[in-house]
Amino acid sequence: MTDIAAILAGEVRSAARLMRDLDDRRPEALTSLKALFPHTGKGYIVGITGNPGAGKSTVVDALIGHYRAAGERVGVVCVDPTSPFSGGAILGDRIRMQRHALDDGVFIRSLATRGNLGGLSRSTFDVAHVLDAMGYQRILIETVGVGQDEVEVMKAAHTTVVVTVPGLGDDIQAIKSGLLEVAEVLVVNKSDREGADRTERDLLNMLDLRATGERKEVEIVRTIATRGMAEGSGITEMAAAIERHRERAWSGPTAEGRAIARAKFHLAELVRGLLADRAAKATAARGGLDEIAKAVVDRTSDPWTLAEQLLASHGV
Amino acid sequence: MTDIAAILAGEVRSAARLMRDLDDRRPEALTSLKALFPHTGKGYIVGITGNPGAGKSTVVDALIGHYRAAGERVGVVCVDPTSPFSGGAILGDRIRMQRHALDDGVFIRSLATRGNLGGLSRSTFDVAHVLDAMGYQRILIETVGVGQDEVEVMKAAHTTVVVTVPGLGDDIQAIKSGLLEVAEVLVVNKSDREGADRTERDLLNMLDLRATGERKEVEIVRTIATRGMAEGSGITEMAAAIERHRERAWSGPTAEGRAIARAKFHLAELVRGLLADRAAKATAARGGLDEIAKAVVDRTSDPWTLAEQLLASHGV
Repeated sequence: MTDIAAILAGEVRSAARLMRDLDDRRPEALTSLKALFPHTGKGYIVGITGNPGAGKSTVVDALIGHYRAAGERVGVVCVDPTSPFSGGAILGDRIRMQRHALDDGVFIRSLATRGNLGGLSRSTFDVAHVLDAMGYQRILIETVGVGQDEVEVMKAAHTTVVVTVPGLGDDIQAIKSGLLEVAEVLVVNKSDREGADRTERDLLNMLDLRATGERKEVEIVRTIATRGMAEGSGITEMAAAIERHRERAWSGPTAEGRAIARAKFHLAELVRGLLADRAAKATAARGGLDEIAKAVVDRTSDPWTLAEQLLASHGV
Repeated sequence: MTDIAAILAGEVRSAARLMRDLDDRRPEALTSLKALFPHTGKGYIVGITGNPGAGKSTVVDALIGHYRAAGERVGVVCVDPTSPFSGGAILGDRIRMQRHALDDGVFIRSLATRGNLGGLSRSTFDVAHVLDAMGYQRILIETVGVGQDEVEVMKAAHTTVVVTVPGLGDDIQAIKSGLLEVAEVLVVNKSDREGADRTERDLLNMLDLRATGERKEVEIVRTIATRGMAEGSGITEMAAAIERHRERAWSGPTAEGRAIARAKFHLAELVRGLLADRAAKATAARGGLDEIAKAVVDRTSDPWTLAEQLLASHGV
């Protein structure tokens, strides 16, 4: 059985090897990815991001439990741009992996900075495509932090869930702008905490403020997800809100436009990535940047002029 | 007086205009930046990052107060990769700006995502160079979050301070790897809170674990920074730890190597940025990516092949 056939049959070992090879940027891995592409498009991708400490990973855990109970196979991409480790289990993953270790309906893959200079978003798309080709009906993309990287990563998802908690105080601002912009379902987790009403009200206000022209339809769901529980309170409602968004966004008249926008974003990421590869090649040639860096330090030239000259000398 | 002369004389209005023009990527702004470059290299740049909720902005506030009391002029770059707003006052800035509004020894500039597609790090270097040319002896770079963007931004600094607080629990992991890697001074803020000893012990353990070969010399300082106080507890010690790092790193035998590494990073960022500009041009041509995105959605071709073809058709 070729690797492609094995991956299409859902064979985990071949898939993990391909993901590692993609991470290492091996040319034959890209060839395999291209061969898998016609077999993708069936998995539904849900992105989950939000404030650190909001309990994202317990929400993801509960959602995995929910989909598994419904008999669906679940692939998870755990994205941590601050970690140097890719592939292995990072953070809460270790706990989760133990829990799901015997469940071959769940596949978890961690993505980190290493090998992702061309963009974590590009790698997230890669892994999501492999999981899709393997036949996972649900693909969850979970982020650790809330930086710009994480916001970009969410663009690979069909539905984006943003998780927050009551009582973050001024830090509610961390959920503002960029993050709120991508939210399609808002989750107030740990909603038994004091201040849940206020948090919900704040979120509603922010959604209204942000609305220029028509207000984007964003549902707010309250959850109490607890690690180790198969289903936390509100998880069924959250899953239902995700389904409603799927109906609205991906099966109506807006579906094709959305699909095109998503493909455009992916293409732009790939173009950026390919150019980054060339930049790396240009800056690695001839003793790298050492020589010209000295000119910057001595202020005999300026960095902007030197960077332009370097690219010109590589015909870019 | 030309703009260059005005900026060198510390004229705020001209500097703000240049920063805005740099944000908008106006070619003449780059020319001005190049002209300012020979006049830079005197300002000392301190980066301050850390967990959301750790009180970074109050620590920065206290540090501004400390330097002002010593008669030094202070420029501040406030970096928020999740905000779409650049230039104006964002987040805690508004409060700070009120406080320092009448003090012309303090200049605060916010940097956000808008206009920074080529990298926030590149823009941070730009603004820091302008502040340096204006004659600010101290330049503080403050980040809002702790994503990879923020870690990269810190590479523009001479000394990087990472701020954390007791009682973050599992979230201590947020300060791990990438962030700890760049820390040169570690601050345990709100150190009157329970658990400060444990946090300090955890940090020491993490520093030891991380040390391969020689252990990097990182001082841990406890502070209690309170908004509105000119000087919080431990701020003098923090400033002293920064000075000690400056002595060790930037005036000994390691100084030149460090300066070269910093210049190399900046050059690499610039090269990446220039290539991103070309990518934007390539993807904007001929009705943009719409046409080829349709082929991805219909799965008549795959995104990886299409991205390669697009660049090839632009001779890149």
